Amino acid sequence: MSGVVRVAVTRWPGGASGDDEIVVEEPLEIRVEDHPLAVTMRTPGADLDLAAGFLWTEGVIDAADDLVGLQHLPGDPVGNTVVARLAGGVEAHWEAIQKATREIYATSACGICGKASLDRIRLLAPTLPRRAQVAPQLLATLADALRDAQPAFARTGGLHGAGLFTLDTGELELAREDIGRHNAVDKVLGARLRADRTPVGDRILVVSGRAGFEIVQKARMAGVPAVVAIGAASSLAVELARDAGMMLAGFLGRDRYVRYS
Amino acid sequence: MSGVVRVAVTRWPGGASGDDEIVVEEPLEIRVEDHPLAVTMRTPGADLDLAAGFLWTEGVIDAADDLVGLQHLPGDPVGNTVVARLAGGVEAHWEAIQKATREIYATSACGICGKASLDRIRLLAPTLPRRAQVAPQLLATLADALRDAQPAFARTGGLHGAGLFTLDTGELELAREDIGRHNAVDKVLGARLRADRTPVGDRILVVSGRAGFEIVQKARMAGVPAVVAIGAASSLAVELARDAGMMLAGFLGRDRYVRYS
Repeated sequence: MSGVVRVAVTRWPGGASGDDEIVVEEPLEIRVEDHPLAVTMRTPGADLDLAAGFLWTEGVIDAADDLVGLQHLPGDPVGNTVVARLAGGVEAHWEAIQKATREIYATSACGICGKASLDRIRLLAPTLPRRAQVAPQLLATLADALRDAQPAFARTGGLHGAGLFTLDTGELELAREDIGRHNAVDKVLGARLRADRTPVGDRILVVSGRAGFEIVQKARMAGVPAVVAIGAASSLAVELARDAGMMLAGFLGRDRYVRYS
Repeated sequence: MSGVVRVAVTRWPGGASGDDEIVVEEPLEIRVEDHPLAVTMRTPGADLDLAAGFLWTEGVIDAADDLVGLQHLPGDPVGNTVVARLAGGVEAHWEAIQKATREIYATSACGICGKASLDRIRLLAPTLPRRAQVAPQLLATLADALRDAQPAFARTGGLHGAGLFTLDTGELELAREDIGRHNAVDKVLGARLRADRTPVGDRILVVSGRAGFEIVQKARMAGVPAVVAIGAASSLAVELARDAGMMLAGFLGRDRYVRYS
C-alpha cells in the first residue's frame, strides 16, 4: 500500500523482535511557476490534490480555471515537488500571491487574536449556502464511517483522515489520509477543486484528531458549512465557526458528540 | 486555569445545553530583533520558553548566552508577540538567520527525502553523550506519568503534552502543554535553554500524539538521546533516529510500547 512502509521493531512486553508497518513521511514542496511557496511534511499520494487544495484554501486560487497546469516537477525522479501554473501567467498573479502571503502572515500575527484573520476570511471566502441542518442521528454515524475509509490508519495507527459526507444523508463522497490533518483536508478539498466542483456547499467535513483554527479556516475558504472532529475544538476554531455561521462539533464518537456552534 | 476557556455547547445524546472547557488557541509571532521569523498557533503560557526553544531547535541559537533579551513586545497589551535580541546584535546574526532559514527550506524540500536534512542536523546538533539505555520497565511507566503532568488536557482533551524524564530513574523534570505538539516540545526544551542547562543529554523526551520528523529533529538539536511517543512514529522520524543513534519508541501505553531504534 502506498504511504506505508515496513520497519524492524522490538515490542514490549516480551521484547520480541519483528516488523511493523509505519506511515511514510516525506517533504512536498509546492511551487507556483518557479517560486517555492510552501513545504509541508506529507504522506506521498494525491500530491496534486494536496497542492490544489493548499492553493485554494490559502486564498491563492479560487477555482479550477485558475490552474492551467499542475504536475510533479518534470524530470525529477523523486516526486517531492509539485509545480502549479496559473491562468494568465506568473506576472499577473505573482503580486497577488505575494500580497496573500504577506496578508496571511500579517493577519495571523496581527496581535488582535484573529480579528483581522476573520475579516480576511470573510472577504475571500464564498458565501455559505445556508446554515447547515444536520440530523443528530446522522452525525453520530460519521465517526465509524470515516474510520472505515482509512485503510492506512487501520494498518499503521499513524495517519489522519478527512472525509466529505453529504449533508442530508451522511453518504461518503471521498476521503483521504495523510500524516498531517491539514494535508488530509487539503487533499479532499483539492480533489473537489480539480474536478471543478466548487464551492463545497452541501457537504460535512469530518476530520480525525482535533479541529483547530486552520482546519475550520480551510473548510470556510472552500464553502463547507459543517465541520466535525473526532477530537476537541480550539477557542479560535469555535470563534471562526460562530462568526461564519458554520456548524462545528467535536468529540465525535459512536452515537455521541459535542456541538460548539 | 490559563490556556482554557469555557464555551456554550450542546451535547448528544440527549441534546442538553451546557458549557464546556476548551483549549485556547492564539497566534504567537516570534521576532528576532525587528524581523518576524515565524508565526505559530499556540496555547498562551510559557511563551518565552516556546520562543527560546524554537530558536534553539531550528538552529538560530546554540545556548542561553546567545540570547541577550527575550520578552513580549513592549507596550503590546495583547501579548501575542515575543521579541528576541541576540548577543552581538542583529548585524552579526541576521545573515546567519537568513542562511539558516534558506537552508531549512532548501533541505526540507531538497527532493532527496531528508538526506540533506540529516546532513544539516548532523552538522548543527551537539554530539549525543551515549546510546541511551532505558530499562523497559521504566519506559512502561512514562505514559501515566506524562498524563499526570497534563492538567489542562484532563480538563479539555484538547492539548498535547511534552515532558522530560531522567534516563536512569524516569523521574519527571518538567512538562508543558500546548495545542501543538511541536510547541509543547519547544516549551520544555526552551525552558532548559533559558535555565542555561544545555544540552539535554540525560533525559527522555516523552510526547503525546505521534512522533514525526520534526519532533525527533527538535530532540536531536537539543541533544536529547531518547524520544518516546504515545502515538505512532513516521518513516522519516525512524530514519533520523537511527542515523543519529537515538532511541525512538512509540505506541507507549501502560506496560507496553514499540521500539523503532
